[in-house]
Order: sequence, then C-alpha cells, then structure tokens
Amino acid sequence: MKAVVLGATGYTGQILLRQLSSHQDIESIIPASSSIAGSKVLDSDPGLHRSIIKKMELTRGEYVSIEEAASYKADIVFSALPHLASAQVCDPFYDHSVVIDLSADFRMEDPELFLKAYGKYPPRAERLASAVYGLSELYRDKIMKSDLIANPGCYPTASLLPLFPLLKKKLIKKNIMINALSGISGAGKKANTSNLLVERSENICAYAPGMTHRHSWEIAKEIHKEDPLVKILFVPHLVPMKRGMAITSSCELTEDISPDSLEDIYKNFYGDSPFVHTVFPAIPETKQVWGSNRCDISWHMEGRTLILFSVIDNLIKGASGQAIQNMNIRFGLDETAGLRLHGEI
Amino acid sequence: MKAVVLGATGYTGQILLRQLSSHQDIESIIPASSSIAGSKVLDSDPGLHRSIIKKMELTRGEYVSIEEAASYKADIVFSALPHLASAQVCDPFYDHSVVIDLSADFRMEDPELFLKAYGKYPPRAERLASAVYGLSELYRDKIMKSDLIANPGCYPTASLLPLFPLLKKKLIKKNIMINALSGISGAGKKANTSNLLVERSENICAYAPGMTHRHSWEIAKEIHKEDPLVKILFVPHLVPMKRGMAITSSCELTEDISPDSLEDIYKNFYGDSPFVHTVFPAIPETKQVWGSNRCDISWHMEGRTLILFSVIDNLIKGASGQAIQNMNIRFGLDETAGLRLHGEI
Amino acid sequence: MKAVVLGATGYTGQILLRQLSSHQDIESIIPASSSIAGSKVLDSDPGLHRSIIKKMELTRGEYVSIEEAASYKADIVFSALPHLASAQVCDPFYDHSVVIDLSADFRMEDPELFLKAYGKYPPRAERLASAVYGLSELYRDKIMKSDLIANPGCYPTASLLPLFPLLKKKLIKKNIMINALSGISGAGKKANTSNLLVERSENICAYAPGMTHRHSWEIAKEIHKEDPLVKILFVPHLVPMKRGMAITSSCELTEDISPDSLEDIYKNFYGDSPFVHTVFPAIPETKQVWGSNRCDISWHMEGRTLILFSVIDNLIKGASGQAIQNMNIRFGLDETAGLRLHGEI
Amino acid sequence: MKAVVLGATGYTGQILLRQLSSHQDIESIIPASSSIAGSKVLDSDPGLHRSIIKKMELTRGEYVSIEEAASYKADIVFSALPHLASAQVCDPFYDHSVVIDLSADFRMEDPELFLKAYGKYPPRAERLASAVYGLSELYRDKIMKSDLIANPGCYPTASLLPLFPLLKKKLIKKNIMINALSGISGAGKKANTSNLLVERSENICAYAPGMTHRHSWEIAKEIHKEDPLVKILFVPHLVPMKRGMAITSSCELTEDISPDSLEDIYKNFYGDSPFVHTVFPAIPETKQVWGSNRCDISWHMEGRTLILFSVIDNLIKGASGQAIQNMNIRFGLDETAGLRLHGEI
Repeated sequence: MKAVVLGATGYTGQILLRQLSSHQDIESIIPASSSIAGSKVLDSDPGLHRSIIKKMELTRGEYVSIEEAASYKADIVFSALPHLASAQVCDPFYDHSVVIDLSADFRMEDPELFLKAYGKYPPRAERLASAVYGLSELYRDKIMKSDLIANPGCYPTASLLPLFPLLKKKLIKKNIMINALSGISGAGKKANTSNLLVERSENICAYAPGMTHRHSWEIAKEIHKEDPLVKILFVPHLVPMKRGMAITSSCELTEDISPDSLEDIYKNFYGDSPFVHTVFPAIPETKQVWGSNRCDISWHMEGRTLILFSVIDNLIKGASGQAIQNMNIRFGLDETAGLRLHGEI
Repeated sequence: MKAVVLGATGYTGQILLRQLSSHQDIESIIPASSSIAGSKVLDSDPGLHRSIIKKMELTRGEYVSIEEAASYKADIVFSALPHLASAQVCDPFYDHSVVIDLSADFRMEDPELFLKAYGKYPPRAERLASAVYGLSELYRDKIMKSDLIANPGCYPTASLLPLFPLLKKKLIKKNIMINALSGISGAGKKANTSNLLVERSENICAYAPGMTHRHSWEIAKEIHKEDPLVKILFVPHLVPMKRGMAITSSCELTEDISPDSLEDIYKNFYGDSPFVHTVFPAIPETKQVWGSNRCDISWHMEGRTLILFSVIDNLIKGASGQAIQNMNIRFGLDETAGLRLHGEI
Repeated sequence: MKAVVLGATGYTGQILLRQLSSHQDIESIIPASSSIAGSKVLDSDPGLHRSIIKKMELTRGEYVSIEEAASYKADIVFSALPHLASAQVCDPFYDHSVVIDLSADFRMEDPELFLKAYGKYPPRAERLASAVYGLSELYRDKIMKSDLIANPGCYPTASLLPLFPLLKKKLIKKNIMINALSGISGAGKKANTSNLLVERSENICAYAPGMTHRHSWEIAKEIHKEDPLVKILFVPHLVPMKRGMAITSSCELTEDISPDSLEDIYKNFYGDSPFVHTVFPAIPETKQVWGSNRCDISWHMEGRTLILFSVIDNLIKGASGQAIQNMNIRFGLDETAGLRLHGEI
Repeated sequence: MKAVVLGATGYTGQILLRQLSSHQDIESIIPASSSIAGSKVLDSDPGLHRSIIKKMELTRGEYVSIEEAASYKADIVFSALPHLASAQVCDPFYDHSVVIDLSADFRMEDPELFLKAYGKYPPRAERLASAVYGLSELYRDKIMKSDLIANPGCYPTASLLPLFPLLKKKLIKKNIMINALSGISGAGKKANTSNLLVERSENICAYAPGMTHRHSWEIAKEIHKEDPLVKILFVPHLVPMKRGMAITSSCELTEDISPDSLEDIYKNFYGDSPFVHTVFPAIPETKQVWGSNRCDISWHMEGRTLILFSVIDNLIKGASGQAIQNMNIRFGLDETAGLRLHGEI
C-alpha cells in the first residue's frame, strides 16, 4: 500500500510517518508539505531513523508538493492539515484514495453545526454525506465501508469513550460536566509566545470554557445522537507536559447500579477492542498510555453520582494513532498494526 | 517579636523561614525540628541567605528541639507538623504564645466531622472551641481575637474564596462540582516513589475523588455554614509542576445575573483584601500568583450555569503565606508584611 | 527617584518592574514599550499586583512610548531592549539619566571585538569610552562613578565570578573549559517554534559551541584583562526549565593548593559581597538561587585539576537583578535594596 | 525463546518487559521480583497492555520468585538488579542460560579496579574472565560468543561511542574533558526525597565530579585499552527530565583534520551499525533519540580543538535497549529486533 501524509512536518504528521514506517502493510510513504517541499525529511525531522528513507524512495527522501503527492495515486491519504484548509487541499485525492482527514472539516454531519462551532461553513459540505465520524470503537462498521473518514478530535475521543456505553443503556441523567486536562502538544507546532516552555512550565489554566471551545460542539453532537436532552458543560485546561490527556466527567445515574456491574457493561461493550482498557478500581494516569493508542477508563461512585476517568495520549488515540487504526479497519488489516500497545513507564 | 517554626525543614516550614526573615516585625526566629535538632540551618536549606542567621542568634543558627523552642516563650508559634501529631506537639506553647497550626488538627469545629474525614478524633479536641478557622478574608474579625488559629487547607482556601461571596447572596443552587488541580508540593517532602520526578513528569491523574479526600469535608463544612443543603463533589488532580493550584467550580445560579454584576459582588466583598484579585474577563493562570499570597478569581457564564476559576500558590496562600497573613491580622500589623504581592513571570 | 524601563514587556523588563515596585527608593516607575504603548500594564502582565499602579501614576498605569518616557527626565533608565537597537533607542536619555543597558551594546570596550562577536560595529561606539562593564562585584568602584553601565551577559556573570579571584592570584594555567547549562528564558520571549514547551521539554542539547556564541567573546575579553594567554572553550546547553544557570569550569592550577585555602581566597575576595556565597564542600544547585540575586560557588580538586561550580538565576543575577544592584551601587543605596536574598525551596 | 527478567519492577526491568513483548523471537517472558513475587504484573505496571499476559502464561501473569524463575531454564536472563547483589542472585542461572547483567558487577575485567570504583571486590570475581563488556558496536564479535555479558553503564556508552573511532586512529591527545547531562531516571526508582519532582524540577546541578563517580572508572578503563596515557575528567549533571543523556566531550587532536574527514571515519567505523547516526553539522538533541536505541553523534572543531556531542536515551541504549541488542547479537537475530529505530517528536 502507498500512503500520502499531507502536513508531514506538524506533530501529528511526524507521528504518522513513524507509525507508517513500522507498519507491515505500507510499502511506500509520500510525505507532503506545501511549505518545505524539496527539503530532506531526515534534516527537518532528525528523530527519524534513516531506514525510513527506503519507504520514501518515490520522493527521494524529500517532502513533496501536493501536486507531486497526488500524482502517485496512493491507496490512503492522511491529511494533517488545519481545518478549513484540509478539505480543499484534499481535492486531488478523493477520487483515487481513501482519505482520512485529521482536521475538523468533516466531523459535523450538519453544516449548520459546523458553522456554529467554527464560524464558517465547512469547505466541502457536499461531501459530508459520504463521510463517517471515525471514532473507531463506536463506528467500526461504517468505517469499514467508507472512503472518507473524519478523524475525531482528541477531547471528544477521550470524553466519549467512557460515556457511550452508559448512554446506550440510558444510564445517564441530563447533565454531564466534562473536565478536561491536556498536554501542550494539543495546540500544535505554531510559533506563538503563549506556548513557550517559559510560559507553560509551572503553570496551569482553564481556557475556552463551555461552548466557546469547538470540541464542545463535537462532543455534544455525538451525545445527542443517543440522548438529545443531555446537556454538557465542557471545560478544558492546559497542563505543563508535552503529551497526554485526562478527562474527569461527572453525572447522575438514572438508577442504582453497583460499580462492578459498570465493569460488566464496559467489558461487554469494548471486549473486542484492543485499545480500551478498564482499570477499575485504580484511577488511570496519562503516563500509562503515553505513546500508545490506548484509552484507559475507570470510575468512582458516591450514591448515584458517577465520576468517570479516561486517559489517552492526545497525539495518538487523540489523533495519529486513531487515524492508523481507522486505516487498519478500513482495509481489513489487523487493527493494531503499526500501533503501540504499551504505554511508557 | 519572637517566632517559633515547628517542622522547619518541610516545604511550608522552609517558606515560613523565608517570610519571617524579611518580616520587619520579627526580631527572632526559632527553627525547630525534632529529627535534625543541632544541625546548621544553612547546611540543610542552602537556598537561605546567610543573613538569616542574625535572626537565629538565639539558636546559634541551628534547628533546636521542641523543648528548647518552648523555653523561649515566643510570641507566635507556627506548627508545620503533620496532622494528628501537631496539636499534641504544641502542648508546651498554648499558654504563652499565639499558635497558628498549619495542620488539620483544629480545622473542624466538630470532632465528629474530624473523625469522618481523618479516621480518628482530633488530638486536642478540648481546645477546638477556642480555635478559629483561619481563612483570612472570611474570618478576619475572629482571627484578630484568637490565640489558636487553624490555618486552612490549600484546596479549601482556593475553592471557598470564589464561592463565599455568592453563597452569602444565596446565588448558588444545590450542587457544586469542584474540580481541582494541584502541583506536587501539596504532597509534602516525603520519600516515596510515587512523587519522583520520573513518575510525575509528563503525567496527570485524578486521585482521592469525592468524599475520599479529607479536604472535601473541610470544604463542605464551610459551605454548610452558609447553606446546609448544598452538595459538593470535589475531584482533585495532580499535575506535573512544583507549585500552583487551579480550581474550576461549576454550579447553577438561583437567578439571572450579569457577569458584570458578579464583578460588583466580588469588589464589594473583597475590596479591602489586598490578596484577592478579580481578573474577569481573563481566565487566571497559576503562574501569575506563583510565590505570592494572592488568590486570583474569574468566571464564565452560559445562561444560569456559572463556572468559577481561582488560582493560588498552594504553598503560599494555601499554607505558609496565609499563616503569616493570619499572624499579621492577629497582631494588628500590616496585613501584607513579609508577603509577596507580585506573582512570577 | 524616577526609573524608566525600556522594553518593559520582555522577561527582564517584567522582572525589573517587580523589583522597582518593592524598592524603597523608587517613587515612580515609567514602563515603556514601543509595541504596545497605551495599553494597561496590569492587562498584559497579570502577575503584577494592582498596588504597583500607585508608582505608575505618571503614566496612568499604561506602557508609554519612548518619547513620553524621555519627557519625564528620570534619574535612572534601564534598557531591556535587544542589542544593536538598545544604544540607539537610549539617545534621548543619555543627557539627563544614568543609563543601565542590559543589552550587549556597551559590553565590549573595543568596537573591533564587538564586530567579531556580533557581526556589526556597536551602534553608539563613541560612548564606549564612558561606559563601564557592570559586573558588580568586580567593578564596584567604577560603577559608582559611571553614568553608563553595560550590564553583563548571564553566561559571563556566572562564569567569571568563580574564575576572577583565581586569575588575580595567577593560579590558573592556560586553558579553561567552560561548560554551561541554561534554562530556556535565556532565549527571551520570542515567538519561535524551537522554544515551545513541546520542543524543549524532555530535551537537552548543546548549541553555539566555542566562539560561535557571542558570550564566548565577552568572557574571553574579561579574562584577557587578567591574563591574555588564557584560552577558553565555552559550550552552552539548553535544559528544560524556565530559569537557572549552572556553570562547570575546569582548568589546571599553577601550583599545589588545598581546597580549604581556595575558600580563604574567595572569602577575602567576596567577603563584602552580599550576593556571593561559597558552599564548599557542597555542590550548588540552581534551585537554591532561583529568584535571588545570588551566585553560589563551589569547587572540586583532583591533584592540580580544578573544577569550579557556580549557579545563578539567569534572569536575576544574570540580568535584571544585577541591573538593580548596579543602580544601588551607583546611587550609594543599600546594595541589596529591591533584591531577594533567599532562593526558592 | 524463553527470557527471564530479574528486577522486573524497576525502570530498566519495566522497559525490558515492553521490548520482549514485541520481540518476535521471544515466546515466553518470566518476570521475577523478590519483593512482590505473587502479585499481578498488570496491577503494578498499568502501562503494559493486557496482551503481554499471553507471553507470561508460565507465571500466570505474575511476578515470580528467583527460585521459580530459575526452574524454567530460560535461554536468556536479564538481570536488572543492583550492583553487588546482581552477580550473586544470578547464581542459579549461569549454567543453563545466557546472562546479560545490567549491573556493574562484571563490567571491570580487573577486580582491583572494581574495588577502587565500588569500594568492594566484585561478588563473583571468578567469572570475570568469561564475561565480555557489552558495548555492542565495539565488541560485537566477542558478544556473539559469550554467555555472560556485562551491559555497560549509560554514561560510558554515550561517552565512548563518539570517542572510540578517534582513539583507534590515534587522533586524540592526552586529556579528555567529558561533560555529561542526565535525566533523573538514571537514579532508578528509589524512594528518596532528593529525586522528588519538587526537588528536581526547575533545578540543575553537577554531582559526583571526577573520580568520585563510578562511571569515571568504567570510561577510563575502556579508553586505556586504546591509549593508557589519556587522562579523562568526567563531570555528570542532573537535569529536570525523565529520560535522555547528552555528552559534550572536548579534547585536542594530534593532527590537522577537516570536519568532513571526521565524518568519513565515523561512517567507516559505524557503517554497519543500525543504531549509530552521525548528524553533523547539526548538533543532536536528546529528544531525537528518546525511546529509541540510537546514539546520535556530531562534532565542532576550532583549530585542533575538538568538541564531540552524543545523545542517547539513558534507559534504552544506556541500559535495556543495549541489553536486547546484545541478546540479538548473541543469538544471531536481527540486531534491531524488539527495538525502536525512531526517536520521539
């Protein structure tokens, strides 16, 4: 298989290169970057081992332009470009390739909702109907058959995975408070003073609370598929680390239920999913999924008050890893191919 | 004035030494440590400038035993000892000195509540009636007249300051979700593997959720003084930094109210308080109060849903700084003496 | 006294505001910023306590333009502007004010040397003769009488303080290896991707080795005043922290000497200097001087091989703190006024 | 192949489990821990994916005692135990298994040298003659034939790899200054206050300078094999990060040589070595090898003064990774099996 990576110099692009490099079914990688086409991949990303160049023979070990990338008629295209740009730049690829868009451009089925969250209509609204929301564990069947996969945001991925099995069972009452903590890589590799080490180190803060964060809309949209009456309140925070995301959600249960039966619900729902672990009664730490495509889940109950804990690596299960997982599902490959199972120590 | 610091080698003790050193009304500092009495203060705490030794002439620049410390009949005693030990170790000081206890031993007016939170009855329950809860801005009048001040916990301080003015106005409905983030120094200077840099760096997690954290009881106790029907749900998290605490609380308002009138309420309530800043519409970052005795407050509203933000330095306003502030109040000194007003950059 | 701060929004400017705010001899602070003149200081630097506004009444609590700043005829002007710009922007101030330039523009007595290090001639070369190199402990007598003080670089300050007493005694043989580690704030508050938290965290590297770093020239220049034959090899490194600098220098001694007599040499040389501590036989850590204007020094000997250790806070003794110290010296004030003596815990 | 890991709960042990888990030639992993034998591996190391349990069927997913571990007659034994203990605990394994000892017990061919460095004679001195020093790239031929491999220290690995090709060519004059920076995991997972996040964060320091660090002896021993007259001066430093090591060595060359011909020397020497990269003229950062088994090398020359830069992940190429590499060499497997080639972003 041949794989194109658009936006190969950003964090998610860099990780896609690493994952594709060790993926047994990928023979050829085409790294594209509009800004530095023509420069050597190893020079700008020295963490890559020189052996990756073998898989980049088509492009002479260089980043190439979008045009050159399109000329290779790849089987799979990953777009790690910014929202509002991504869907358009992908124009040359829709006809010949499966496209996995890591931006938000195809995440909202309803263009009006996209307008509310992003202030503009989505750039290729006419393709929305053919796109599937790529939260792998929830939409595996649709992903298998789709040629346009909208890779979810990091906050929605980590928030929805623990909530969904309970929503399906109608166990959750009307309000969900979602408190989220994210490492700084969530902001991408942009040159601005606010994410300098000196500004972010020894520092935490909330930002974009409630509906002022675009991911609020994405989370709500999915929850409302199950229960349109649930209200969510989402508050994200920045914490001084590179990678990692922890969600603490709280809500009221509709009925008395024991902590152990919650475990049964999760095991039934995610039993076949290699990347979802429940660790109850322990509380998960982000470290234990760092570098892996996992989402580790646990909970705490006081009466009918439920607190849900979930952790992911925001760049892996929250972005590049889930994209690879979706490729694996789409092409009938081993769902774990190219992905790490173990977190770091 | 002569000041004793019990537990002078822990983080809060070390900071008390620094603050007392630059406090104009303190002539003599008596640092006490049961474990290393007789050793030189400058050797074990090399961050101290040698000039502090002048204020330690009584003890020859050494940590002294509790007995020797008691023999000086100090005006003020700070106990930075662990709970359950502190109140007993302070026995020789109650008669001659004002005691500010930074442990939890006198924080609960009701010994039964202490039992629920700490698993044992408080060690000097007979003195509870004479103790005042030392949240400076709320209990200034009582602190002025008390000889036994129970310095509050860091989480309660940061949680209660933004909530209290609204509770007083009956603006808050029955449920408050308190989400808390703390730097690692909150765990003290104990040798255990779980707080090694290697374990805590690039890592976040929730811990002790709900009523399993002792500070839940302390927070609830204070809130119930204003409204016994309010329920709180408190979830603390550890984040990879030394110092700093951010609280994000959410609740429903009892009436429609504009964000600006909230500002008026805070300005009226805290107008005379040098250490409480409102920064609305900005959201405060912990960095901006790092090293200072401040609590910076802001909020976000969506309809009647209110989100409150507050930040402190957990070791200063959350411990040693508030202790000095309480001493200043008690002795009629300038409330800011010995304390920093500016946060770091 | 009235004090102007040019470049008040950068890290060194921000710290100067804090120090001047708590300096008893400063009545008025005039913060200048060409980029955001007219905006409120408290808005852009929320770490400042609102009480500083009293000292900024002249400028209505706002940053002002260079022109307005010049109109106040301040006693002292601190320039925290970039090199090559600073000396020119200071033109309106030389006649009426003592100028302390934190940039490199006046650090080299010889314009040819400046050319070698910075690639251009210094902007106000005609004033070089009247400038003094402001390494406080070495040039106190000259600083007292000068109206133009070139505040030294951070690396030169931390490197030269331990070396100078030995150079004066002709104890050091011809080669000195200076290995330097710096926190990231040394790079200033510039928006570039290379100093993002995600890039710098969990990462160390050497950079600009040997004479490719401008501070090599500044260090060599000072050493050659004592011994023109000494060669230095300087290699700086970036380490993942906000603030702090550690220098490990190694050289051969010209004669046998005991570690203890080294202590005598330092005590004689720096006995009156409140900011230089020797901590032998301990090895200093940067933490112990964090936030203070100190330089802590120690050493290790194996035969005639000497290793020198020194630590400073790069933003304090390496920049803003030494600038205040130089002001204090120049105006005959207490040398420690407005400066912290204790490091953090 | 069956593999035993002794000391499976420490950092190097934990990483060995991860590497063996994804190693295609390992069928069975036997994790041993004297302290917590009988407890579940997934409970104490939640970063592990549950799939590893399949390879731990022999031990029922539990840590086992040394005795039980010995009963399985494994092909390969990794000892991640402390020095002075390791060689003895391995007694039951020498007869049936290849032993790779990650401790220092077999690193010194000469027991007298071990005595100087460690203060005691090595515990199984009689086996020293049959042990090989496992610096993979230098001793590949010997490692192939040995049943007892002494895995090198992290500092020696990172220091020697850039030096050896030049020593072989007699290019280095008599003094080498080795300046070393290490992340905190080098200190292991021991409960002591000095490596708490609060102590180590925002902090750097030198420690154990010169011959007071044991690795000085190990480095010198290897260098003296090539040139007994070379003197080394080694100074290690702790920097606030989990993992990563950077070495900056400086020395004088014996002849004029161009930077480019240095590149030829390295390419010739390490051309077949998959884990050594030269990145000249760039200077390597530790981040680029984080998680990988790589050593990236570069240099800077001023006249005949040479500065060498090398970076490794101290836990991988400096410990567990090199151990796996040595196993691969010993058993004729692909040298890169089970090891990561790419560093992190």
